Amino acid sequence: IYNEQHPFEQPSPGDDKKTLVILGTGWGATSLLKSLKTENYNVIVVSPKNYFLFTPLLPSCTVGTPIRYITRHKKAAVQVLEGECTYIDPVSRTITVEDNSEIRGNVTSATIPFDYLVVAVGAENQTFGIPGVAEHACFLKEIWDAKKIRGRLMDCIETAAFAGQTEDEIQRLLHMVVVGGGPTGVEYAAELHDFITEDLAVWYPDIAGKVKITLVEALPNVLPSFSKQLIEYTESTFKENKINILTKTKVKGVDQKHIVVEDANGQTTEIPYGLLVWATGNTSRAVVRKLMAALPNEQKQRQGKYLASVFNKLAKNEEQKGVKVTDLKPFHYSHYGSLA
Amino acid sequence: IYNEQHPFEQPSPGDDKKTLVILGTGWGATSLLKSLKTENYNVIVVSPKNYFLFTPLLPSCTVGTPIRYITRHKKAAVQVLEGECTYIDPVSRTITVEDNSEIRGNVTSATIPFDYLVVAVGAENQTFGIPGVAEHACFLKEIWDAKKIRGRLMDCIETAAFAGQTEDEIQRLLHMVVVGGGPTGVEYAAELHDFITEDLAVWYPDIAGKVKITLVEALPNVLPSFSKQLIEYTESTFKENKINILTKTKVKGVDQKHIVVEDANGQTTEIPYGLLVWATGNTSRAVVRKLMAALPNEQKQRQGKYLASVFNKLAKNEEQKGVKVTDLKPFHYSHYGSLA
Repeated sequence: IYNEQHPFEQPSPGDDKKTLVILGTGWGATSLLKSLKTENYNVIVVSPKNYFLFTPLLPSCTVGTPIRYITRHKKAAVQVLEGECTYIDPVSRTITVEDNSEIRGNVTSATIPFDYLVVAVGAENQTFGIPGVAEHACFLKEIWDAKKIRGRLMDCIETAAFAGQTEDEIQRLLHMVVVGGGPTGVEYAAELHDFITEDLAVWYPDIAGKVKITLVEALPNVLPSFSKQLIEYTESTFKENKINILTKTKVKGVDQKHIVVEDANGQTTEIPYGLLVWATGNTSRAVVRKLMAALPNEQKQRQGKYLASVFNKLAKNEEQKGVKVTDLKPFHYSHYGSLA
Repeated sequence: IYNEQHPFEQPSPGDDKKTLVILGTGWGATSLLKSLKTENYNVIVVSPKNYFLFTPLLPSCTVGTPIRYITRHKKAAVQVLEGECTYIDPVSRTITVEDNSEIRGNVTSATIPFDYLVVAVGAENQTFGIPGVAEHACFLKEIWDAKKIRGRLMDCIETAAFAGQTEDEIQRLLHMVVVGGGPTGVEYAAELHDFITEDLAVWYPDIAGKVKITLVEALPNVLPSFSKQLIEYTESTFKENKINILTKTKVKGVDQKHIVVEDANGQTTEIPYGLLVWATGNTSRAVVRKLMAALPNEQKQRQGKYLASVFNKLAKNEEQKGVKVTDLKPFHYSHYGSLA
């Protein structure tokens, strides 16, 4: 434990080393960093966040590991830049990094050349361009998302308890809507239910009985990528616990107090809500879309070949060190279940 | 422990009871609530916060107790309203409460009649009307103040570490200024120093050595209300630890990146800073100032008499229950030291 909290001094890797830029501090970037021999490269990590977020626990609580904790335990020094990579130039082999946080210095933008680039920036929340979602919904991706949900949830409850609030408005404020029947949405709806029956019922006995949870999913059932048994178990458990599931229901629009949904028959309904949690999956980030557009088509086709050649080259390096390619064990994937 | 987490059901105190409104959920309101027999009054607690904040720990960490935790353990039910009391009408004996939080219902304002009113709203941060303080400084009063300081402190450090930042700008970003040499300012400067030497030095070895802390005080020494020995000990300890103390120094103005100070000789200097923490004490809240203005002068003079009569009446009630006024023990104040 002492060594964990008191890492050794780190030498600089030396000016002759190639520059390896890693974009991101999430799962991909962090696992690469952990196994990377940093003394062989001039490593620069670029991310708007200075911590690794253990995302599977986000629906229940939030845990972050400072990225410096990982980099300071590497053999050679790693440079960390808190900033957002806004542009990748594959021709000049540079990235543009911007400091978009609250405190800014005189220098807020930097162009950084690289020899190798690892893009591990993850994804953005998918809103399908539905109007009002980005403005009014809460997501479950970052630490501040979880804090925002907690703040709004308690605020809905206190506002419902405000003197003279009308019954209609109390029902609206206490209607918690989760959109997206994947593992994140299902887990969040279940966590919310437990919070209401186990905690809220104790401390807000007048309020807890009035809270309603609705899960909205566009497909015919929740957890579409999971087994039939799990789907049936989830749907029956939710029914028992009075969590309302609306399947085959598409969200058409969102405002501050209502979502408009369309059911299987094409009929639209306006549903009042207090808290809206949006968990419909991911889409690629702008910087990645820009990179894809900047790459010539020919290059995109060559990506597969390129990846193969990288692995071959790596294997060759290993071979030179006395390890045969044939010694590499085949990779078997076995699924131990999902954490979310 | 089970009972603490599972309080009994609470009966309503009954319609015949007098209404006692308590403004605030701080030290005064909470200690009153704890000893109050809630079955004798129709108690309504009004506060913008739904928790009691243990303020002495604010410079080091933040702890909040939900106010419902206290009220739910009372014998009879207590109504809690999350909202800000914006006006007290001493003539009609009503208060106006507004819901100024993010989530609002159709009803955002309520007028609540009272028979008795306890004003325990605490104080506001004293800025002496110095321009720019409210906009740019961080305070140490609420949970969000502590979070804001933490966020800005880390942001200053990451921005100082941004690629290509100039040396002048790095020095500015890493200059932490604390204004106010009372116990809060002194404790915060010391906590900051410990954080930099114990934590930052490990995880940001290139940055930690460049951080500078300055404590600004208008009077001739820090901790003016404490003993000479403590003042000397504090000033010499700060000197040893390279925390710069500027006494007899008045702040004349603040902008986003500088404070302007005037020394004992009347000379003004512009000091660049990254983080500014303002701890110069308290002033009364607007709602209290409005109440004082609404009370006729005669009534103010009668306050002393009134308080005495309240205590006498209370004593008389006790007497009727068989306790003699003369049995009341005289109150002795002994000072066991300050926590801050």
